[in-house]
Amino acid sequence: MEHHFEPNRYYNSFGSFEPVLTIASGDCVFTSTLDAFGHGRDGSLVATPGNPLTGPFLIEDAEPGDQLVVYLEMISPNRDHGFTFSSIAPHIVDGSFVPELPTRDLTRWDVNVDAGIATLIDQKAEPHELTIPIAPMVGCIGVAPSGGQAISTATSGRYGGNMDYRHIATGATVLLPVLTAGALFFIGDGHAVQGEGEVVGTGIEISMDVAFTVQLRKQVNSRWPRMETATHLIALGNARPLDQALQHATTELVRWLCSDHDYDVRGASHLLGQALEYDIGNVFDPAFTVAAKMSKKHLYR
Amino acid sequence: MEHHFEPNRYYNSFGSFEPVLTIASGDCVFTSTLDAFGHGRDGSLVATPGNPLTGPFLIEDAEPGDQLVVYLEMISPNRDHGFTFSSIAPHIVDGSFVPELPTRDLTRWDVNVDAGIATLIDQKAEPHELTIPIAPMVGCIGVAPSGGQAISTATSGRYGGNMDYRHIATGATVLLPVLTAGALFFIGDGHAVQGEGEVVGTGIEISMDVAFTVQLRKQVNSRWPRMETATHLIALGNARPLDQALQHATTELVRWLCSDHDYDVRGASHLLGQALEYDIGNVFDPAFTVAAKMSKKHLYR
Amino acid sequence: MEHHFEPNRYYNSFGSFEPVLTIASGDCVFTSTLDAFGHGRDGSLVATPGNPLTGPFLIEDAEPGDQLVVYLEMISPNRDHGFTFSSIAPHIVDGSFVPELPTRDLTRWDVNVDAGIATLIDQKAEPHELTIPIAPMVGCIGVAPSGGQAISTATSGRYGGNMDYRHIATGATVLLPVLTAGALFFIGDGHAVQGEGEVVGTGIEISMDVAFTVQLRKQVNSRWPRMETATHLIALGNARPLDQALQHATTELVRWLCSDHDYDVRGASHLLGQALEYDIGNVFDPAFTVAAKMSKKHLYR
Amino acid sequence: MEHHFEPNRYYNSFGSFEPVLTIASGDCVFTSTLDAFGHGRDGSLVATPGNPLTGPFLIEDAEPGDQLVVYLEMISPNRDHGFTFSSIAPHIVDGSFVPELPTRDLTRWDVNVDAGIATLIDQKAEPHELTIPIAPMVGCIGVAPSGGQAISTATSGRYGGNMDYRHIATGATVLLPVLTAGALFFIGDGHAVQGEGEVVGTGIEISMDVAFTVQLRKQVNSRWPRMETATHLIALGNARPLDQALQHATTELVRWLCSDHDYDVRGASHLLGQALEYDIGNVFDPAFTVAAKMSKKHLYR
Repeated sequence: MEHHFEPNRYYNSFGSFEPVLTIASGDCVFTSTLDAFGHGRDGSLVATPGNPLTGPFLIEDAEPGDQLVVYLEMISPNRDHGFTFSSIAPHIVDGSFVPELPTRDLTRWDVNVDAGIATLIDQKAEPHELTIPIAPMVGCIGVAPSGGQAISTATSGRYGGNMDYRHIATGATVLLPVLTAGALFFIGDGHAVQGEGEVVGTGIEISMDVAFTVQLRKQVNSRWPRMETATHLIALGNARPLDQALQHATTELVRWLCSDHDYDVRGASHLLGQALEYDIGNVFDPAFTVAAKMSKKHLYR
Repeated sequence: MEHHFEPNRYYNSFGSFEPVLTIASGDCVFTSTLDAFGHGRDGSLVATPGNPLTGPFLIEDAEPGDQLVVYLEMISPNRDHGFTFSSIAPHIVDGSFVPELPTRDLTRWDVNVDAGIATLIDQKAEPHELTIPIAPMVGCIGVAPSGGQAISTATSGRYGGNMDYRHIATGATVLLPVLTAGALFFIGDGHAVQGEGEVVGTGIEISMDVAFTVQLRKQVNSRWPRMETATHLIALGNARPLDQALQHATTELVRWLCSDHDYDVRGASHLLGQALEYDIGNVFDPAFTVAAKMSKKHLYR
Repeated sequence: MEHHFEPNRYYNSFGSFEPVLTIASGDCVFTSTLDAFGHGRDGSLVATPGNPLTGPFLIEDAEPGDQLVVYLEMISPNRDHGFTFSSIAPHIVDGSFVPELPTRDLTRWDVNVDAGIATLIDQKAEPHELTIPIAPMVGCIGVAPSGGQAISTATSGRYGGNMDYRHIATGATVLLPVLTAGALFFIGDGHAVQGEGEVVGTGIEISMDVAFTVQLRKQVNSRWPRMETATHLIALGNARPLDQALQHATTELVRWLCSDHDYDVRGASHLLGQALEYDIGNVFDPAFTVAAKMSKKHLYR
Repeated sequence: MEHHFEPNRYYNSFGSFEPVLTIASGDCVFTSTLDAFGHGRDGSLVATPGNPLTGPFLIEDAEPGDQLVVYLEMISPNRDHGFTFSSIAPHIVDGSFVPELPTRDLTRWDVNVDAGIATLIDQKAEPHELTIPIAPMVGCIGVAPSGGQAISTATSGRYGGNMDYRHIATGATVLLPVLTAGALFFIGDGHAVQGEGEVVGTGIEISMDVAFTVQLRKQVNSRWPRMETATHLIALGNARPLDQALQHATTELVRWLCSDHDYDVRGASHLLGQALEYDIGNVFDPAFTVAAKMSKKHLYR
């Protein structure tokens, strides 16, 4: 079943709030998301700044222990401009370099979705002009955390959250552990593009038209968000420091290879030792995000 | 000038040892390296285990403050087998998962350079057999550290060292800060292939035939190893934790963009914020290695 | 005014829940707390395990930006036994030592408040018997976090939380930043005693009789929990890794010396450089806790 | 046997250098150390700055696997002034606070050993004057590292080194793992006093008269420096990040309790869980230092 859902309230936390829509496994939802500052498709402020989320969507029959499969059918900017900050965050450079960082200004980019590019004119920067290809993605995706918690969209955890991982994009499948009855799925914080690490604290923050299809897998023992793309299995770990995020992601990938792909831990070690790949989602948010990846071409069949 | 150098002694530290050969800027050296365990091309033990190095090569006229440019003309396995360990290291997984790790056995792989593959038969692993493409690289490359220090080839620092970064391979250019008179260049620790992170503590450890050309750039203010490939500028940071290695790499890339590519820090922030890439060299050695990368296609011209 | 409050519901999160009692600046509250597992003074299970909290107490007129001063008049065990876990947590030892850790069993201690000692008989341990002095404290103390969040009592943040710092005891004053209207103060998770770091994941978990007096300071710019004891000013930082918790605590102590004690940052640096002390609260919880301390005897007058 | 040794050369690394004196187990050495900047008792520059060391002292019959016991009979300033830096290091505060740090100036303190105080007059600081009690200690103590390495006195490791731990003072016993034949003991980097963490990067740097007695214990399986004071057993861990230094220290203390004090790991866990103490040596140097401590009053007898 297809749903066309126009949001009219937004949340700044992932939590067990009143669902905006109830959907079933197999359903597809067409909706939209605001930018991180609360602006919508026409640029006007319609929600509290700080990654306001669209949702929660209640998935019928979802129970803790299930896995929520989310096919990202479309993540596409629905306006012609976005915003970034102008300075790398101080904790991402050497302490001795911090005094050389510029001021942290909000800066506007023109975004041309048809041409697939974003352009910045910043008279204070050298060079003044910068044009780069776009690669739309969402920073925030997840379900309600366990135990009735409501956790700010600034951060992330086992439930997903503000992972700011640039491969959460059209065509990717995100697999989330269900932690509460109904799962309560949220999405938001679109970026026209974002560098690895989100080192300035933003991608090009923009409102989006999004479409996703959900599917429920009963009683899948996953502990962290996972993804599947055309080429890779990906396990996501969210924590500070980066070392711990990497431990979570690596462990989750080993567990996945062992539970679903006929490896034991020794076999998975051999494979990962020589073929593992890592991406860094963000090193800006309270919890950092690391992706541990395995190319499907290496998988045992 | 071309040198064909057959090593007959090896060092297990990067230090100010007696040079094995004196070369000039512009010279090319053809030589060989042992595997990490001290075995040569015929498989016999010829040096103390623990990443024995070929070198040091003294570069005429090199002085502290210069930059040593090393073109890696060839990194190619010179025998038909290599070795790995069989288990992910405990500090790379969640503490609660450590008891599930297998024993840490040395395991032999057949390496077929012509076919470009490596194959493992391990009756204790499930699956028993694993074949993956090779991508030869060296784990250790660097110069003598400052102040007369001699630092174990287990670790790495500003001088390079055991960075275990899989893109230090044929075709790459490595740019090292000269820290002592004559630079004193070392190379070793070849891997037929290695996954990102070197999570089992080894690549497929193998002896290599190597060729490199050196060039001296006078008084270049670089603080960490840098690299240039066909597609990217890369700055390497070596430290624990991973967060600090990432700070060093990110800072060095910003400095490089500003000194050589007409960016100021604000302009570099804009570029990195939306187009930065990271690789993880290793998360196994005493110092971890992070690579901060910028695609040349984005560079201001 | 004195309040004698008998709790009948408990929360496993710090959040903006319905207040159990409204009090005014200057009031004193006599109440009780459960142990971490939800057992009360008679040992029966009366709440959901996981640090169930007594509260929230709404403080009249408290507004974001104020500071809530909490005098801990009494923290005293109200029963004769408590519980600990039997093993250091794996992330607190070297990865290579993890396989040598014992099983993580819940273990009972006899607690004699009059004699001031706790005694464990564990036939599986060598030695079998252990008696140590008690030093009662609370692991959890704090206010509702900002933005309507509800955050598990497993962790901590600017709002306080599960800091497991052993000097949060009778006679100490805790100063908390007010983050939401009414402050919404919580307390719980008593320990008869706890080692620095809480390395087994528990103190001797026990129910408590507690008494505290609150006072409101209007518009005090504090960012993290602070404490004052007979001898020290203490700033608390809560984060992972330990390095970041230490940064928060150190920065907060410098700010405090500058705002309230006539130091500038250079003067505070001189003092801290030669007279700073640190305690480690816990290295077990999702966020670790570090205390930066300055003896009052060194303070400028 | 007593040795009165007047040093005339100094090393800026811990390494396998030519011994300055050969001593036997049981011998006592009276000697002196320079300050960190290379100035001696009369204030003149006599060695290269950067923690120049007195030594190495070769201990007869010392072999790898032994433990070198060093009784610190005396650590006493031999002049009337010392130096500190004027600013907390940027990596020890929040990134956002770094721009508020003062300049990093070398600042002179008057040191009155008889009165037991040090006084700073700094017209740029508020307040201008600061007087604190002294507590003399040495920042650097250790043996030659393994494998012929020579490692800068900036940092530390299993061999000891620049640990900057303020309890390495008169009356303490330091127990070092012997890593090379003859042990090769070094000492230096005296501080009239130093705050916990060494957050400005110095104590009050001063030259010292020192006396120490050595004793050799054959084949003691210790992995990290240990200490014994009148009241405590102390295990030291040196690493970055702080979390890892703490893992090393905690693990070493557990091993020590198990090998020498009749605990098994479960019994040691019970004890440490409720009675462990931690100190932070330094959070300034390339490797940080954490001390895990157990009061002797709790030890099983």
